[in-house]
Amino acid sequence: MKKILLTLVLGIVCVGTAMAQEALWSGSQVTSPVVNPDGTVTFNLVAPKAVTVEVTGDFLPPQKIDTPRGSYEAPGVAKLEEKNGVWTYTSAPLAPELYSYTFRVNGMTTLDLSNVYVNRDVASLTSIFIVSANKGDKGDLYQVNEVPHGDVAKVWYDSPTLKMKRRMTVYTPAGYDKGKNYPVLYLLHGAGGDEDAWTTLGRTAQIMDNLIATGKAKPMIVVMPNGNPGSQAAPGAWSRGMYSPSMRGAGGQPAASMDESFPDIVKYIESHYKVAKGKKNRAICGLSMGGGHSFATSKRYPDMFNYIGLFSAGLGIGGGQQGQSFYQQLKNSTEVSGQLAKLFAGKPALYWIAIGKTDFLYQQNADLRKYFDEMNYPYEYLETEGGHIWRNWRIYLTEFAQKVFK
Amino acid sequence: MKKILLTLVLGIVCVGTAMAQEALWSGSQVTSPVVNPDGTVTFNLVAPKAVTVEVTGDFLPPQKIDTPRGSYEAPGVAKLEEKNGVWTYTSAPLAPELYSYTFRVNGMTTLDLSNVYVNRDVASLTSIFIVSANKGDKGDLYQVNEVPHGDVAKVWYDSPTLKMKRRMTVYTPAGYDKGKNYPVLYLLHGAGGDEDAWTTLGRTAQIMDNLIATGKAKPMIVVMPNGNPGSQAAPGAWSRGMYSPSMRGAGGQPAASMDESFPDIVKYIESHYKVAKGKKNRAICGLSMGGGHSFATSKRYPDMFNYIGLFSAGLGIGGGQQGQSFYQQLKNSTEVSGQLAKLFAGKPALYWIAIGKTDFLYQQNADLRKYFDEMNYPYEYLETEGGHIWRNWRIYLTEFAQKVFK
Repeated sequence: MKKILLTLVLGIVCVGTAMAQEALWSGSQVTSPVVNPDGTVTFNLVAPKAVTVEVTGDFLPPQKIDTPRGSYEAPGVAKLEEKNGVWTYTSAPLAPELYSYTFRVNGMTTLDLSNVYVNRDVASLTSIFIVSANKGDKGDLYQVNEVPHGDVAKVWYDSPTLKMKRRMTVYTPAGYDKGKNYPVLYLLHGAGGDEDAWTTLGRTAQIMDNLIATGKAKPMIVVMPNGNPGSQAAPGAWSRGMYSPSMRGAGGQPAASMDESFPDIVKYIESHYKVAKGKKNRAICGLSMGGGHSFATSKRYPDMFNYIGLFSAGLGIGGGQQGQSFYQQLKNSTEVSGQLAKLFAGKPALYWIAIGKTDFLYQQNADLRKYFDEMNYPYEYLETEGGHIWRNWRIYLTEFAQKVFK
Repeated sequence: MKKILLTLVLGIVCVGTAMAQEALWSGSQVTSPVVNPDGTVTFNLVAPKAVTVEVTGDFLPPQKIDTPRGSYEAPGVAKLEEKNGVWTYTSAPLAPELYSYTFRVNGMTTLDLSNVYVNRDVASLTSIFIVSANKGDKGDLYQVNEVPHGDVAKVWYDSPTLKMKRRMTVYTPAGYDKGKNYPVLYLLHGAGGDEDAWTTLGRTAQIMDNLIATGKAKPMIVVMPNGNPGSQAAPGAWSRGMYSPSMRGAGGQPAASMDESFPDIVKYIESHYKVAKGKKNRAICGLSMGGGHSFATSKRYPDMFNYIGLFSAGLGIGGGQQGQSFYQQLKNSTEVSGQLAKLFAGKPALYWIAIGKTDFLYQQNADLRKYFDEMNYPYEYLETEGGHIWRNWRIYLTEFAQKVFK
């Protein structure tokens, strides 16, 4: 039988030219990117007629751009050099991490078509690569290792509150089929994102596989719903068509808010999976808007979650006066302060707040901490370098996942 | 609460510039492609410094290229025209279909970064779009409609025969959680492909959702394994790293052939899902190499499948003499002719062969039909226009799925 297979494969390779033409294969002529043994990374692009080729990405030191209205950080840019039509650049040695990049050819942005690994962030596509130096480093945590793997499913659940069927991503850990009942981490995305974001940009399945395999996190189910209450699913996955996603979301006016509808998700998960029930087996966390959803859902249902994580959370309270700080809003809202009082009266095992030093939402989160300090509400706090970026959110998930259900 | 959300969303949109820079967003300035009401499609690309911009794809009439060694078909190419730095082309009216395309800017291939929908075929990325004119046409069948959706899971199963854990894609139909036991269609990919191919290039979930919703196909589970017996999973999904896939596959020497190992897959599915067991509830089909696997597996296990589908099948028998036709190989192999005799003695409900008129594997499949005719083995046959392309394989799945379990 092996001979049959070999004949088949060789037969097909021999006619590769004919197939390639039919399949529109672009036929990459170089390898790119190449992660070198010393941690530098070499980018190669075939563009014989180009005048300038640059690479931009989060692996380069950001540029500080000064404008009359202030300064901001833009991704760094490096020039590639040409030899015989092939443009090349080799980076400095890079720290272990997942990196994103694009090329600019004569000023036009393009992906690296020698690299089949692409992430979508809202409406933007970028090429990606991982640098991993040693076992246990961040890059190692984000890559697929020879460890038992959990399953990842795109699941449709019914939301009577939002009056629609909705899609979510569910990670079940390795051994789920042989295990008993698992605790559940609800993991929420940010504005412009969807139920795909945490498994692509967030590397959730890899992080969980690796943390669970090394005993650093408990085996758990991770549920990643769509956090846009007017939408059924990610772009291309529902009848809205193959539209360009945007920060505003695609759906119409939702029937309810995301936090109001949250019990529909919990109900589906607890009736369809092998779930350890009750508050002590539930955690909720999210990034940016999803941090806001975690804040709102946990205080709306104070007996639902034992672990609450806010990653660079977008926080706000309706009805607050223009120009009021979030601290003032918290002080003034009897509804919200009452909800928080009930939540903390129930002594949740962990209220965890994490944010980067240069995050544009830093002040809101400082206001929340100030309020919690005054009220003697216990919480843990992690402050990292950098801003409102996936690099931080992967770190926050890694940290938070090790703190829950223990 | 709606006000809170609105505040949050608007707050985040206002700081969009800062976030965009951090997230490396490419910020598309045009909409592309635009499917116009008359079925024409307009492509737009911002490339102010370009000298030539072309679009190539399977929506254009193929070019016949003559060479000293014969002629072959290459994808058509059309030139875009420039106005104020924006390059534009509008196609002729297109038949309903899923189409693939790339741009060529000064001869360099690039994706359309205004379009977030990308398919990977082995190591090539292409931008895609769907034209749908009317309810029930092919385009309509391939898009997500407002019908109940099945779930799609990436599942790890144990293959003792191949001595590894392996990944496969499993589609469970809408209502699965409330239904009883379902028949199972095993759907196999071609050389260079993997367990992702049928749900991306093949639009399996959409085709099945739409056929089941309209009562044209029975609700069924569809199992899409990885057909490379030396590999655990698709590129990027196993510890082999983020390599470039190739026609030869990535794994080492496999412990057994794909068809030898097939019972491991059936065993996993039948012990983990709500499955109606027995031959009459099992179908197997596949494209190209997967057609070869369907041929080989069904004859190796003649009591396993009641429905067998060969889509542009790659067929071959080890030990055949150099230059022998597949017909001669079939006649000469007592092992294979004996297996086929047993298979047909069991009277499978359907043996279905489909191929395109210009497929490079046409003769092999004609040889198989000639042999079956001589042996009075009943089969059904579909011959379509075109060659060894996904357009045909989506049609074959659509046809075959309506014929099984009835």
